[in-house]
Amino acid sequence: MGFFSKDIKTLDDLFVHTLRDIYYAEKQIEKALPQMVDKATNASLKAGFEKHLQETKGHIERLEEVFEMHGVQAKGVDCPAIDGILEEANDISGDIDDKQVLDAALIASAQAVEHYEITRYGTLMAWAKQLGRTDCAAVLAKNLKEEEATDKKLTEMAESNINIQAAE
Amino acid sequence: MGFFSKDIKTLDDLFVHTLRDIYYAEKQIEKALPQMVDKATNASLKAGFEKHLQETKGHIERLEEVFEMHGVQAKGVDCPAIDGILEEANDISGDIDDKQVLDAALIASAQAVEHYEITRYGTLMAWAKQLGRTDCAAVLAKNLKEEEATDKKLTEMAESNINIQAAE
Repeated sequence: MGFFSKDIKTLDDLFVHTLRDIYYAEKQIEKALPQMVDKATNASLKAGFEKHLQETKGHIERLEEVFEMHGVQAKGVDCPAIDGILEEANDISGDIDDKQVLDAALIASAQAVEHYEITRYGTLMAWAKQLGRTDCAAVLAKNLKEEEATDKKLTEMAESNINIQAAE
Repeated sequence: MGFFSKDIKTLDDLFVHTLRDIYYAEKQIEKALPQMVDKATNASLKAGFEKHLQETKGHIERLEEVFEMHGVQAKGVDCPAIDGILEEANDISGDIDDKQVLDAALIASAQAVEHYEITRYGTLMAWAKQLGRTDCAAVLAKNLKEEEATDKKLTEMAESNINIQAAE
Protein backbone atom coordinates (compact mmCIF):
# COMPACT_ATOMS: atom_id res chain seq x y z
CA MET A 1 0.00 0.00 0.00
CA GLY A 2 2.86 2.35 -0.73
CA PHE A 3 4.56 2.26 2.65
CA PHE A 4 6.88 -0.71 2.87
CA SER A 5 8.94 -1.77 5.84
CA LYS A 6 12.15 -1.09 3.91
CA ASP A 7 11.24 2.56 4.23
CA ILE A 8 11.47 2.36 8.03
CA LYS A 9 14.66 4.17 8.96
CA THR A 10 13.72 5.98 12.17
CA LEU A 11 11.46 5.50 15.20
CA ASP A 12 9.20 8.13 13.64
CA ASP A 13 8.85 5.95 10.50
CA LEU A 14 8.09 2.95 12.72
CA PHE A 15 5.48 4.98 14.64
CA VAL A 16 3.73 6.04 11.42
CA HIS A 17 3.88 2.50 10.00
CA THR A 18 2.33 1.04 13.18
CA LEU A 19 -0.30 3.79 13.24
CA ARG A 20 -1.25 2.68 9.72
CA ASP A 21 -1.23 -0.96 10.85
CA ILE A 22 -3.76 -0.32 13.66
CA TYR A 23 -5.79 1.97 11.35
CA TYR A 24 -6.17 -0.93 8.91
CA ALA A 25 -6.90 -3.28 11.85
CA GLU A 26 -9.65 -1.02 13.27
CA LYS A 27 -11.27 -0.84 9.82
CA GLN A 28 -11.23 -4.64 9.49
CA ILE A 29 -12.71 -4.94 12.99
CA GLU A 30 -15.43 -2.45 12.02
CA LYS A 31 -16.30 -4.80 9.12
CA ALA A 32 -16.19 -7.95 11.26
CA LEU A 33 -18.24 -6.78 14.26
CA PRO A 34 -21.70 -6.78 12.59
CA GLN A 35 -21.23 -10.52 11.89
CA MET A 36 -20.35 -11.07 15.54
CA VAL A 37 -23.49 -9.15 16.58
CA ASP A 38 -25.54 -11.45 14.30
CA LYS A 39 -23.93 -14.64 15.61
CA ALA A 40 -24.19 -13.80 19.33
CA THR A 41 -27.19 -15.24 21.19
CA ASN A 42 -26.77 -13.90 24.73
CA ALA A 43 -28.40 -10.46 24.91
CA SER A 44 -25.57 -8.85 26.94
CA LEU A 45 -22.96 -10.17 24.52
CA LYS A 46 -24.92 -8.96 21.49
CA ALA A 47 -25.36 -5.52 23.09
CA GLY A 48 -21.67 -5.46 24.02
CA PHE A 49 -20.63 -6.11 20.42
CA GLU A 50 -23.06 -3.41 19.19
CA LYS A 51 -21.61 -0.91 21.65
CA HIS A 52 -18.07 -1.84 20.63
CA LEU A 53 -18.93 -1.31 16.96
CA GLN A 54 -19.85 2.28 17.79
CA GLU A 55 -16.64 2.67 19.83
CA THR A 56 -14.60 1.26 16.93
CA LYS A 57 -15.97 3.97 14.62
CA GLY A 58 -14.78 6.49 17.23
CA HIS A 59 -11.34 4.84 17.37
CA ILE A 60 -10.98 5.24 13.61
CA GLU A 61 -11.84 8.94 13.92
CA ARG A 62 -9.32 9.39 16.74
CA LEU A 63 -6.63 7.71 14.63
CA GLU A 64 -7.42 10.12 11.80
CA GLU A 65 -6.97 12.93 14.33
CA VAL A 66 -3.52 11.52 15.29
CA PHE A 67 -2.49 11.26 11.63
CA GLU A 68 -3.46 14.91 11.16
CA MET A 69 -1.68 16.04 14.36
CA HIS A 70 1.46 14.26 13.17
CA GLY A 71 1.20 15.70 9.65
CA VAL A 72 0.98 12.40 7.76
CA GLN A 73 -1.63 10.92 5.46
CA ALA A 74 -4.28 8.71 7.10
CA LYS A 75 -4.05 5.37 5.34
CA GLY A 76 -3.75 1.70 6.18
CA VAL A 77 -0.99 -0.84 5.57
CA ASP A 78 -1.47 -4.59 5.35
CA CYS A 79 -1.69 -6.14 8.79
CA PRO A 80 -1.33 -9.94 8.56
CA ALA A 81 -1.77 -10.15 12.34
CA ILE A 82 -5.35 -8.85 12.46
CA ASP A 83 -6.17 -10.71 9.24
CA GLY A 84 -5.04 -13.95 10.92
CA ILE A 85 -6.88 -13.21 14.17
CA LEU A 86 -10.13 -12.44 12.31
CA GLU A 87 -9.70 -15.45 9.99
CA GLU A 88 -9.35 -17.69 13.02
CA ALA A 89 -12.40 -16.06 14.65
CA ASN A 90 -14.42 -16.71 11.51
CA ASP A 91 -13.19 -20.30 11.12
CA ILE A 92 -14.02 -21.26 14.70
CA SER A 93 -17.45 -19.66 14.80
CA GLY A 94 -18.54 -20.80 11.35
CA ASP A 95 -19.33 -24.36 12.25
CA ILE A 96 -20.49 -24.35 15.86
CA ASP A 97 -24.21 -25.08 16.05
CA ASP A 98 -24.73 -24.93 19.83
CA LYS A 99 -25.64 -21.33 20.67
CA GLN A 100 -24.00 -21.29 24.08
CA VAL A 101 -20.75 -22.85 22.85
CA LEU A 102 -20.78 -20.35 19.98
CA ASP A 103 -21.14 -17.46 22.46
CA ALA A 104 -18.14 -18.81 24.41
CA ALA A 105 -16.11 -18.97 21.17
CA LEU A 106 -17.19 -15.44 20.17
CA ILE A 107 -16.06 -14.06 23.54
CA ALA A 108 -12.65 -15.74 23.13
CA SER A 109 -12.27 -14.42 19.57
CA ALA A 110 -13.22 -10.89 20.63
CA GLN A 111 -10.66 -11.02 23.45
CA ALA A 112 -7.93 -12.03 20.98
CA VAL A 113 -8.87 -8.96 18.91
CA GLU A 114 -8.87 -6.70 21.99
CA HIS A 115 -5.46 -7.95 23.11
CA TYR A 116 -4.00 -7.20 19.69
CA GLU A 117 -5.32 -3.65 19.88
CA ILE A 118 -4.17 -3.24 23.50
CA THR A 119 -0.59 -4.22 22.65
CA ARG A 120 -0.46 -1.94 19.59
CA TYR A 121 -1.90 1.10 21.41
CA GLY A 122 0.50 0.50 24.32
CA THR A 123 3.44 0.42 21.92
CA LEU A 124 2.25 3.49 19.99
CA MET A 125 1.84 5.48 23.21
CA ALA A 126 5.38 4.61 24.35
CA TRP A 127 6.79 5.65 20.97
CA ALA A 128 4.70 8.84 20.79
CA LYS A 129 6.09 9.94 24.17
CA GLN A 130 9.66 9.18 23.09
CA LEU A 131 9.11 11.21 19.94
CA GLY A 132 7.90 14.14 22.05
CA ARG A 133 4.32 13.69 20.81
CA THR A 134 2.54 13.60 24.16
CA ASP A 135 -0.43 15.16 22.33
CA CYS A 136 -0.72 12.07 20.09
CA ALA A 137 -0.15 9.79 23.11
CA ALA A 138 -3.08 11.43 24.91
CA VAL A 139 -5.46 10.69 22.01
CA LEU A 140 -4.17 7.11 21.66
CA ALA A 141 -4.70 6.66 25.41
CA LYS A 142 -8.45 7.19 24.92
CA ASN A 143 -8.62 4.29 22.46
CA LEU A 144 -6.49 2.10 24.74
CA LYS A 145 -8.74 2.80 27.72
CA GLU A 146 -11.84 1.72 25.80
CA GLU A 147 -10.17 -1.43 24.48
CA GLU A 148 -9.11 -2.37 28.01
CA ALA A 149 -12.64 -1.75 29.33
CA THR A 150 -14.08 -3.95 26.57
CA ASP A 151 -11.60 -6.72 27.35
CA LYS A 152 -12.50 -6.53 31.05
CA LYS A 153 -16.23 -6.85 30.28
CA LEU A 154 -15.52 -9.83 28.02
CA THR A 155 -13.52 -11.49 30.82
CA GLU A 156 -16.46 -11.01 33.16
CA MET A 157 -18.75 -12.61 30.58
CA ALA A 158 -16.27 -15.48 30.02
CA GLU A 159 -16.28 -16.19 33.74
CA SER A 160 -20.06 -15.74 34.09
CA ASN A 161 -23.00 -17.98 33.42
CA ILE A 162 -22.73 -17.64 29.63
CA ASN A 163 -19.94 -20.20 29.62
CA ILE A 164 -21.25 -22.12 32.60
CA GLN A 165 -24.41 -22.80 30.58
CA ALA A 166 -22.23 -23.93 27.68
CA ALA A 167 -20.45 -26.37 29.99
CA GLU A 168 -23.67 -28.04 31.12
CA MET B 1 -5.07 -31.64 11.04
CA GLY B 2 -7.95 -33.96 11.86
CA PHE B 3 -9.82 -31.71 14.27
CA PHE B 4 -12.04 -29.32 12.41
CA SER B 5 -14.25 -26.67 13.92
CA LYS B 6 -17.36 -28.48 12.68
CA ASP B 7 -16.52 -31.10 15.30
CA ILE B 8 -16.96 -28.54 18.09
CA LYS B 9 -20.23 -29.43 19.78
CA THR B 10 -19.50 -28.78 23.45
CA LEU B 11 -17.41 -26.46 25.61
CA ASP B 12 -15.11 -29.43 26.19
CA ASP B 13 -14.55 -29.72 22.42
CA LEU B 14 -13.86 -25.97 22.28
CA PHE B 15 -11.41 -26.27 25.19
CA VAL B 16 -9.50 -29.11 23.47
CA HIS B 17 -9.50 -27.25 20.13
CA THR B 18 -8.10 -24.09 21.75
CA LEU B 19 -5.53 -26.14 23.69
CA ARG B 20 -4.35 -27.47 20.32
CA ASP B 21 -4.38 -23.93 18.90
CA ILE B 22 -2.02 -22.61 21.62
CA TYR B 23 0.09 -25.80 21.40
CA TYR B 24 0.66 -25.08 17.70
CA ALA B 25 1.28 -21.39 18.54
CA GLU B 26 3.90 -22.19 21.22
CA LYS B 27 5.72 -24.48 18.75
CA GLN B 28 5.77 -21.73 16.09
CA ILE B 29 7.05 -19.26 18.71
CA GLU B 30 9.78 -21.76 19.67
CA LYS B 31 10.86 -21.75 16.01
CA ALA B 32 10.68 -17.93 15.68
CA LEU B 33 12.54 -16.93 18.86
CA PRO B 34 16.08 -17.91 17.76
CA GLN B 35 15.74 -15.45 14.83
CA MET B 36 14.66 -12.74 17.27
CA VAL B 37 17.69 -13.51 19.46
CA ASP B 38 19.90 -13.13 16.37
CA LYS B 39 18.29 -9.85 15.27
CA ALA B 40 18.34 -8.15 18.70
CA THR B 41 21.24 -5.79 19.42
CA ASN B 42 20.59 -4.62 22.98
CA ALA B 43 22.14 -7.15 25.38
CA SER B 44 19.16 -7.18 27.79
CA LEU B 45 16.72 -7.73 24.94
CA LYS B 46 18.84 -10.54 23.47
CA ALA B 47 19.12 -12.20 26.90
CA GLY B 48 15.37 -11.74 27.45
CA PHE B 49 14.55 -13.52 24.18
CA GLU B 50 16.99 -16.34 25.08
CA LYS B 51 15.34 -16.77 28.48
CA HIS B 52 11.89 -16.76 26.91
CA LEU B 53 12.95 -19.45 24.43
CA GLN B 54 13.75 -21.71 27.40
CA GLU B 55 10.43 -20.79 29.04
CA THR B 56 8.58 -21.56 25.78
CA LYS B 57 10.03 -25.09 25.78
CA GLY B 58 8.65 -25.43 29.32
CA HIS B 59 5.24 -24.12 28.19
CA ILE B 60 5.08 -26.82 25.49
CA GLU B 61 5.85 -29.49 28.12
CA ARG B 62 3.16 -28.11 30.45
CA LEU B 63 0.62 -28.17 27.60
CA GLU B 64 1.53 -31.83 26.97
CA GLU B 65 0.88 -32.40 30.67
CA VAL B 66 -2.59 -30.79 30.34
CA PHE B 67 -3.41 -32.92 27.27
CA GLU B 68 -2.48 -36.03 29.27
CA MET B 69 -4.48 -34.91 32.34
CA HIS B 70 -7.50 -34.34 30.13
CA GLY B 71 -7.06 -37.67 28.33
CA VAL B 72 -6.66 -36.29 24.80
CA GLN B 73 -3.90 -36.53 22.25
CA ALA B 74 -1.29 -33.75 22.27
CA LYS B 75 -1.35 -32.27 18.79
CA GLY B 76 -1.63 -28.89 17.09
CA VAL B 77 -4.30 -27.36 14.88
CA ASP B 78 -3.73 -24.59 12.37
CA CYS B 79 -3.68 -21.20 14.06
CA PRO B 80 -3.96 -18.40 11.47
CA ALA B 81 -3.72 -15.83 14.30
CA ILE B 82 -0.18 -16.71 15.42
CA ASP B 83 0.86 -17.28 11.79
CA GLY B 84 -0.29 -13.73 10.99
CA ILE B 85 1.35 -12.21 14.08
CA LEU B 86 4.68 -13.92 13.31
CA GLU B 87 4.44 -13.06 9.59
CA GLU B 88 3.97 -9.41 10.50
CA ALA B 89 6.88 -9.59 12.97
CA ASN B 90 9.09 -11.03 10.26
CA ASP B 91 7.96 -8.50 7.62
CA ILE B 92 8.59 -5.49 9.83
CA SER B 93 11.98 -6.59 11.12
CA GLY B 94 13.28 -7.85 7.78
CA ASP B 95 14.09 -4.49 6.27
CA ILE B 96 15.05 -2.23 9.16
CA ASP B 97 18.75 -1.47 9.06
CA ASP B 98 19.07 0.81 12.10
CA LYS B 99 19.86 -1.43 15.08
CA GLN B 100 18.01 0.65 17.65
CA VAL B 101 14.88 1.03 15.54
CA LEU B 102 15.01 -2.72 14.89
CA ASP B 103 15.17 -3.40 18.66
CA ALA B 104 12.09 -1.19 19.15
CA ALA B 105 10.26 -3.13 16.41
CA LEU B 106 11.32 -6.49 17.92
CA ILE B 107 9.96 -5.47 21.34
CA ALA B 108 6.63 -4.48 19.77
CA SER B 109 6.43 -7.75 17.81
CA ALA B 110 7.25 -9.80 20.92
CA GLN B 111 4.53 -7.98 22.87
CA ALA B 112 1.96 -8.83 20.17
CA VAL B 113 2.96 -12.49 20.54
CA GLU B 114 2.74 -12.31 24.35
CA HIS B 115 -0.70 -10.69 24.24
CA TYR B 116 -1.98 -13.47 21.98
CA GLU B 117 -0.74 -16.07 24.45
CA ILE B 118 -2.11 -14.14 27.44
CA THR B 119 -5.62 -13.99 25.95
CA ARG B 120 -5.62 -17.68 25.00
CA TYR B 121 -4.35 -18.86 28.42
CA GLY B 122 -6.89 -16.62 30.17
CA THR B 123 -9.70 -18.13 28.07
CA LEU B 124 -8.46 -21.70 28.58
CA MET B 125 -8.27 -21.21 32.35
CA ALA B 126 -11.86 -19.89 32.50
CA TRP B 127 -13.11 -22.84 30.44
CA ALA B 128 -11.07 -25.40 32.44
CA LYS B 129 -12.66 -24.16 35.66
CA GLN B 130 -16.16 -24.31 34.15
CA LEU B 131 -15.47 -27.87 33.01
CA GLY B 132 -14.42 -28.78 36.56
CA ARG B 133 -10.76 -29.15 35.52
CA THR B 134 -9.18 -26.93 38.16
CA ASP B 135 -6.15 -29.22 37.90
CA CYS B 136 -5.68 -28.23 34.23
CA ALA B 137 -6.37 -24.58 35.09
CA ALA B 138 -3.57 -24.66 37.70
CA VAL B 139 -1.02 -25.87 35.12
CA LEU B 140 -2.21 -23.34 32.52
CA ALA B 141 -1.89 -20.60 35.17
CA LYS B 142 1.86 -21.26 35.35
CA ASN B 143 2.24 -20.55 31.63
CA LEU B 144 0.02 -17.46 31.88
CA LYS B 145 2.09 -16.08 34.77
CA GLU B 146 5.32 -16.40 32.78
CA GLU B 147 3.79 -14.81 29.67
CA GLU B 148 2.54 -11.87 31.76
CA ALA B 149 5.97 -11.45 33.37
CA THR B 150 7.62 -11.45 29.93
CA ASP B 151 5.15 -8.85 28.64
CA LYS B 152 5.83 -6.66 31.69
CA LYS B 153 9.60 -6.83 31.11
CA LEU B 154 9.08 -5.93 27.43
CA THR B 155 6.95 -2.93 28.44
CA GLU B 156 9.76 -1.77 30.74
CA MET B 157 12.22 -2.11 27.85
CA ALA B 158 9.83 -0.28 25.47
CA GLU B 159 9.65 2.62 27.91
CA SER B 160 13.39 2.57 28.69
CA ASN B 161 16.41 3.94 26.92
CA ILE B 162 16.35 1.27 24.18
CA ASN B 163 13.63 3.20 22.40
CA ILE B 164 14.80 6.60 23.57
CA GLN B 165 18.09 5.93 21.77
CA ALA B 166 16.10 4.93 18.66
CA ALA B 167 14.23 8.25 18.81
CA GLU B 168 17.42 10.32 18.80
